[in-house]
Amino acid sequence: MPVDPAAPIEVTAFAWVPPFARGQVRDLRVRWALEEAGLPYRVRLLQGERPADYYREQPWGQVPAYREGGVALFECGAICLHIAEKSEALLPRDEAGRGRATTWLFAALNSMDVPAMGLTITSIFNAEADWSAGASAAFAAFLDQRLSRLSDWLGEREWLEGRFTVGDLMMVCVLRSIADEGLVAKYPNLAAYVARGEARPAFIRAMQAHMADFVAEPA
Amino acid sequence: MPVDPAAPIEVTAFAWVPPFARGQVRDLRVRWALEEAGLPYRVRLLQGERPADYYREQPWGQVPAYREGGVALFECGAICLHIAEKSEALLPRDEAGRGRATTWLFAALNSMDVPAMGLTITSIFNAEADWSAGASAAFAAFLDQRLSRLSDWLGEREWLEGRFTVGDLMMVCVLRSIADEGLVAKYPNLAAYVARGEARPAFIRAMQAHMADFVAEPA
Repeated sequence: MPVDPAAPIEVTAFAWVPPFARGQVRDLRVRWALEEAGLPYRVRLLQGERPADYYREQPWGQVPAYREGGVALFECGAICLHIAEKSEALLPRDEAGRGRATTWLFAALNSMDVPAMGLTITSIFNAEADWSAGASAAFAAFLDQRLSRLSDWLGEREWLEGRFTVGDLMMVCVLRSIADEGLVAKYPNLAAYVARGEARPAFIRAMQAHMADFVAEPA
Repeated sequence: MPVDPAAPIEVTAFAWVPPFARGQVRDLRVRWALEEAGLPYRVRLLQGERPADYYREQPWGQVPAYREGGVALFECGAICLHIAEKSEALLPRDEAGRGRATTWLFAALNSMDVPAMGLTITSIFNAEADWSAGASAAFAAFLDQRLSRLSDWLGEREWLEGRFTVGDLMMVCVLRSIADEGLVAKYPNLAAYVARGEARPAFIRAMQAHMADFVAEPA
């Protein structure tokens, strides 16, 4: 297990989130990347209200933020890319392969996450609003179009470019965050792809560490 | 002007989009990055229906796609990062500075673009829906929160990390894509930041080339 209080890499995480959000907070993505790369890390848990100076580290007040010597990052995509640059397990060393992995990393966080998070915002965060059903149907239709294209691309392959990369890591995380599970289940090759990601030993270790850090009650 | 039919770098663009979308299609972002880096490029214009094999190049059927020798990319973020790696004009060479620029690139395309594109989807693409106003108000409120944090971060600085990087390039592009201009105008330092980006000679050249490639009528 690479959680080590003396490690030079520090990742922030929330000490408490509501039970439905556990297993989805974005520190999980960074923990997974660190596990794939075999890099130890320490966790700084944020309790209760964020301290005012945390916004200088993470301007949105979210997690994760990342520190390693003089390097200070936020945004799970930037952090996972930084980690990937340290390990061929996440990023091929040749320029063409590196470009494909990076392309899928951005595809996950922009082309897929825009409709995916949009659906979370309309269907979960605003579930009680009178416009929730109508708006959610529009985001679900857009998301379904993207999922259909991704399913076509993946076909019978194990990973998006044949071998696992940081692009798969992020795409699996975005797909498993989709508020309506039926949207992914409609594409059996995508459902199997997510299951393959979740079965990786590094994912399992990351999820165990992610879940173990939550306290039962908010401070 | 680096548009050169013999250049080794190829970027795809649409030959026609509705007038309201001109000046916003994402090939502009890549042209801007190429202008900042001083790299010549050729343009492959897509006319009418996308050919079926274009989806193997750009799985969403969007632009831009990018080719350069054996490198084939899509997603404007991945392409701009690839270009940035070739030029210190876009990406500092030290690890800490590189990490900050990359962080803002992802921040623009995920933390800012999720609510920004969400608002475009609810208020423009679904303007006639009975749920449009309610959903748009929710996305505008979320976006305003992010803009407020970005304004706090930027303060009196010229660029997000003091000097212009690919992170500023993308953040300026996302801010200028926001469907409700009043949201950015509310923060004078952000409005001035966008204007500074749009005043850069490289942006002006990229915009001229982007606009010059559109034909008057769809094929």
